[in-house]
Amino acid sequence: MSIFTHSARGSVLLVGAGPGDLGLLTVKGLRALEAADVIVADRLGARPVIDQLEAERGRRLDAEIIDVGKLPGHHPVPQQRINEILVDRARAGHRVVRLKGGDPFVFGRGGEELAHCHANGVDVQVVPGVTSANSVPAVAGIPLTHRGLATAYTVITGHDQLAELGGGRDHTVVVLMGIGTLAHSAMILARGARGADCPVAIIEDGYGTGQRVTIGTLATIAFQAASRQVRSPAVVVVGDVVTLSPYADGAFETEQPRTELTRNP
Amino acid sequence: MSIFTHSARGSVLLVGAGPGDLGLLTVKGLRALEAADVIVADRLGARPVIDQLEAERGRRLDAEIIDVGKLPGHHPVPQQRINEILVDRARAGHRVVRLKGGDPFVFGRGGEELAHCHANGVDVQVVPGVTSANSVPAVAGIPLTHRGLATAYTVITGHDQLAELGGGRDHTVVVLMGIGTLAHSAMILARGARGADCPVAIIEDGYGTGQRVTIGTLATIAFQAASRQVRSPAVVVVGDVVTLSPYADGAFETEQPRTELTRNP
Repeated sequence: MSIFTHSARGSVLLVGAGPGDLGLLTVKGLRALEAADVIVADRLGARPVIDQLEAERGRRLDAEIIDVGKLPGHHPVPQQRINEILVDRARAGHRVVRLKGGDPFVFGRGGEELAHCHANGVDVQVVPGVTSANSVPAVAGIPLTHRGLATAYTVITGHDQLAELGGGRDHTVVVLMGIGTLAHSAMILARGARGADCPVAIIEDGYGTGQRVTIGTLATIAFQAASRQVRSPAVVVVGDVVTLSPYADGAFETEQPRTELTRNP
Repeated sequence: MSIFTHSARGSVLLVGAGPGDLGLLTVKGLRALEAADVIVADRLGARPVIDQLEAERGRRLDAEIIDVGKLPGHHPVPQQRINEILVDRARAGHRVVRLKGGDPFVFGRGGEELAHCHANGVDVQVVPGVTSANSVPAVAGIPLTHRGLATAYTVITGHDQLAELGGGRDHTVVVLMGIGTLAHSAMILARGARGADCPVAIIEDGYGTGQRVTIGTLATIAFQAASRQVRSPAVVVVGDVVTLSPYADGAFETEQPRTELTRNP
């Protein structure tokens, strides 16, 4: 099939690795990894997929793996250097896979890597992936939209643009990389139409061994996150869809938010 | 690996098929289809993936395939009947895959199917998929976020909630199933901070043979869509990220929006 012929010699494929579970890598992404000469991998989302694939195969991938170690707020290899690696390796005739956590075009700076390859005359294609925006809430049983509960969703990172975001509890908000600014973000959203008692879920390490779900409200979530020592990576979901989570069972029928929840169901 | 053991007898897997390209099905989704006794498939997104898989294999899948024919605004099999099929088949001991276009939890009514299975004591799991919200813009080279251009995005269907959506051109809007209400949606968005000359792209049939990209502005897009006879399925993208598309080349440097574009690059 033509969809599997892009990984030609001297080219770059920007591949979305998904949220860090080999099962959520795309078929095209899997075949690209198996055909690659060089894999330039993020730590978050991407590296676990390589590890799982090698474990399943019982052998190392043939490709050279360059770990550019990207984590939220911690980029040991600067973006400009990553761009240069992609172009240099493609020009050397390699089949280069740039394996990025989630989807390359959702907070991944994939657009910059695409533009840099284009500007340097390097053949480059994008393979979309499963973004953590929808796949991480799914581990807590939370759909981003639901008939009668939510008919729109916004994906955002820090708190900068939250103040101008409209909508109520039927407009789900997904905050990525938002743990450091959680208290401020919750306050801003509580001031709007969602209100202080709007349901919130935090899902830590969605597909990893540190998976944990915390359920609260905009009023309580920052305190809960602090007391439970919630850490990145984590996805925050705000809106009435949170009430659909099995973890929310009973949380919104009493005065108190639920704070004790089971780990790793 | 444990991630591939969910499709047990007498259970339901709600699988995201992605946007209609076998390469964008997940690894777990692929293995679920190969192990299924019964596949309950949407037309949009899901059916093309089955067809491509059977073409690649050169043989039919072993599963019974029940086509519930869901298209925007046209549901030959009512949702309640789909729910019943899932439960009935699981209770009969079958490995049931409910193959849904895109992601089950993004405008897919997957939450309802999940709840119905839970309520009837049927073992059910969700396998997230690649949503058309990010994968269809990607075929036009449009990232939903981009450093300096957009740091948030909203996914929405009709125009009902657009009036209360804040943000400017640096907050990308993705409208799914929005062709029927395009003129009204464009007018509402143009009245806000985005303004009438905000860039817009329409991508028809993202991964199908009818793939076509139309670039314009909020002021011109409804006229362009009418004159080009734009049809569903299509994804509409609004915001400055549209200027990154190769299809937009030159469109935003002159007074006139570009109306003639190449098909199927």
